[in-house]
Amino acid sequence: MRYCVIMCGGVGSRFWPSSREERPKQFLDFFGSGRSLLQMTFDRVLELVPAERILLLTNKRYAPLIREQLPEIPAENILLEPARRNTAPCICWAAHHIAALDPEGSMVVLPSDHLVLKEKAFHESLRRGFEFVENADRLLTLGIRPSSPHTGYGYIQQDAPVESAEGFYKVKSFTEKPNAELAKVFLASGEFYWNAGIFLWKAKSVLEAFNRYDPETAAVFNRGNSDYGTPRESAFIDANYSSAPSNSIDYAIMEKADNVYVETVDIGWSDLGSWKALYDISPRDEHGNVTQNCRLIQQDCENTVFAISDREKIVVAKGLKDYIIADTGRALLIYPVADEQKIRQIVNDVKDRFGEEYV
Amino acid sequence: MRYCVIMCGGVGSRFWPSSREERPKQFLDFFGSGRSLLQMTFDRVLELVPAERILLLTNKRYAPLIREQLPEIPAENILLEPARRNTAPCICWAAHHIAALDPEGSMVVLPSDHLVLKEKAFHESLRRGFEFVENADRLLTLGIRPSSPHTGYGYIQQDAPVESAEGFYKVKSFTEKPNAELAKVFLASGEFYWNAGIFLWKAKSVLEAFNRYDPETAAVFNRGNSDYGTPRESAFIDANYSSAPSNSIDYAIMEKADNVYVETVDIGWSDLGSWKALYDISPRDEHGNVTQNCRLIQQDCENTVFAISDREKIVVAKGLKDYIIADTGRALLIYPVADEQKIRQIVNDVKDRFGEEYV
Repeated sequence: MRYCVIMCGGVGSRFWPSSREERPKQFLDFFGSGRSLLQMTFDRVLELVPAERILLLTNKRYAPLIREQLPEIPAENILLEPARRNTAPCICWAAHHIAALDPEGSMVVLPSDHLVLKEKAFHESLRRGFEFVENADRLLTLGIRPSSPHTGYGYIQQDAPVESAEGFYKVKSFTEKPNAELAKVFLASGEFYWNAGIFLWKAKSVLEAFNRYDPETAAVFNRGNSDYGTPRESAFIDANYSSAPSNSIDYAIMEKADNVYVETVDIGWSDLGSWKALYDISPRDEHGNVTQNCRLIQQDCENTVFAISDREKIVVAKGLKDYIIADTGRALLIYPVADEQKIRQIVNDVKDRFGEEYV
Repeated sequence: MRYCVIMCGGVGSRFWPSSREERPKQFLDFFGSGRSLLQMTFDRVLELVPAERILLLTNKRYAPLIREQLPEIPAENILLEPARRNTAPCICWAAHHIAALDPEGSMVVLPSDHLVLKEKAFHESLRRGFEFVENADRLLTLGIRPSSPHTGYGYIQQDAPVESAEGFYKVKSFTEKPNAELAKVFLASGEFYWNAGIFLWKAKSVLEAFNRYDPETAAVFNRGNSDYGTPRESAFIDANYSSAPSNSIDYAIMEKADNVYVETVDIGWSDLGSWKALYDISPRDEHGNVTQNCRLIQQDCENTVFAISDREKIVVAKGLKDYIIADTGRALLIYPVADEQKIRQIVNDVKDRFGEEYV
C-alpha cells in the first residue's frame, strides 16, 4: 500500500518574525487562504493517499499544533521525534514504521512547508513515481528544472534516461549548494535539476539502503524491529532516537546509493525558503508589491513584501524599494530583500539580547 | 490671584498614528518619561500656580483622560467645551470664569502639548510676565527667538522696548505662517519672534479687549455674566458656547489690540508640532536615530525616529535614512520625515477607506 510521510519539524528561522519557533512557517497561513502550508500539503496528497496512511513526523513541541490543524489525522499517525536529528533518522524511523504495517509498502516523503502550484501535474508525477519504485528496488527523487542559478538548493545531475519511463533518469551526482559560478554552469548545461526534497521508494528499499550506506543509523533503528507497529514503539523511540547521528537523507543515502533515479517534473514548485522565494510566487500589484490582505496605503513603494499578521492593522508606507516589512505584533522587521540571508544571524542577536520568547 | 489655563482640546493629527483622536498628543508619554505632555505642563506650572487655580479647558470627550492623568485637579476646574471653536471662545470663557472668582485675577494661558526644556527660565519668565500684566492693562505674549526660518509658526515683530522691563517690547505686528522667503527675512532682521501661544493678562484686560475687538464673541459670553462661578455656568455654556464664532485668539485680539507686548524668552521651547520638531529636541544615538525606549536592532539607519508604543516589541530595521517609524499596534507608519506634512492628508485617507476608528 502507498503511504505518505510529511516532515514537519522545521523551525523556519528565515521568515522571522512571521515564522517563529513556537509556530514555524509550515503552520502559518502564508497566503491568507485560510489553510497553512502544512494543511495545503495534506490537502494536496489526499487524492493519492488516504488520511489513515498519512504519517506526520515532527518534533514533540508541535504535536498540539498538528492536532489542531489536521484533526483528520489519526493520533497514532503523528510520530513524535524526541530530538532534532535532521532527515535521515526521521525517514529511517518512518520506513520501519511503514514496513511493520506493510512489508511491501511504498512511501512518498514530503516537506510540509513547500508550495506546489500545479496540483494536477503533482498528482500525475507522484502516481508515476509510485509505479516506478514499486516495480523495482529503486530510490527516486523529484527534480525541478532550475529557473535561475540558485545557490541555496541541492542540484541533481541526470545520467542516462530510463527506457520506457519518460522523464526518469539515472542520477549521476548530487551537489549541495554550489557556489554562484558552478550554479551558472549547472543551469547552462541543462543536465541539472533542483532537489525538491520529495522522495519515493518502498520502505524496504530505503531500509536496505540504510543498512548498506549508513550502518550507524541503521543499527540504532534495527534494534527496534520487534517494537515497530506495537504499543512499545514510542517507548523504544524515546529511548533510542537521540543516539542516531544527525544527518540528512541526501548525505546518508542519496549521494552514495547506486539505485538512485530522478523524475523530472514541472509542478510549479517553490520551497518558500526565503522572502524572495515567497515574493517570486506571490501575486503583485502594479508596482510589484506583495500584500497579504493587509490594509495598506502605499506611496512610491516598489517590489516590497508586506507581511502583516493582523489583518485589521493599517500600514502606511512611502518610498520603500525592495523591502520586506513583516509585523507580527511582537516584532517588526523592515529589511532589504537583498540582505535577507542575514535574517538568521539577526534572529540569533534577538535571542541573545531580548530572550528566547521573541524567536 | 494668579490662575493658569491649560488648553488641551487639540487632536494632534500630525503625529498619527502615535497621536489619535481618541488619545491625542498631549495625553501621550512622548518621551517615555512616565509623564504625558499634559502632565509635564501641569508639573511645570505648579511651582507658580497651585492646583486649585489651574483650569483645564478641553473637549468633552477628553474629560475622562484628564481626570485619569491629573487626579490632583478639582473636578470643577475642568471646563468642558461642548464644541470646537478654536482658542478665542475658549479663552473668553476662561477669563469670565476667573473674573467671577476674582475680579482682579491674572492668568497665564498654556498649550498642553508643548515642550519646555529650561524650567527655571520658564518660571522666571512667567513670574516677570505676571508682574508685567498685573501692574497695568496689558496683553502679553511670550516670544521665542527663532532658530530657523520656520514657515509653520506665527511671527511677532518687536517695536520699542519697554523701559525698566528688560526683554519686554511693544508689539509692532503679527504675521501668521509666512512663506519661506518672508520667514528668511524675518530671521535675518533680528526683530521677529515665534509666537509660542503662551499669553498672560488680567482676566478683566482680555475681557475688555474682547468687548472692543471681537464684540460678537464678547456678546455671546457676556450673556452669561450672572452665571459664571455659579452652578448655572455649565448649563449656560452648553446652551451658548457653540454660537460663538470659531476664531483664534491671535486673529480676534492680538493682531488688533494696541496694548500688546512681547516678552522675549529663552526657555528651551518646542511646540512638538511635527515629527521633525520631536526629532530635533530628542536625544539621538551616534547615527542620529531617535528611539523611545524601544527594543531596536538597527543596521545602517540614520536620522530615523522609532516611535513604538509597545516597549516590549522588537524592531529590526536596516537601511532607513530620514524616516519616521511609528507603530501603535493598530497602525504602522513608515514615512520619510521630509514628507511629514502629507501625514494629515493620509489620516483623511485612512478615515475614508478604513473608518473613523483608526484616526
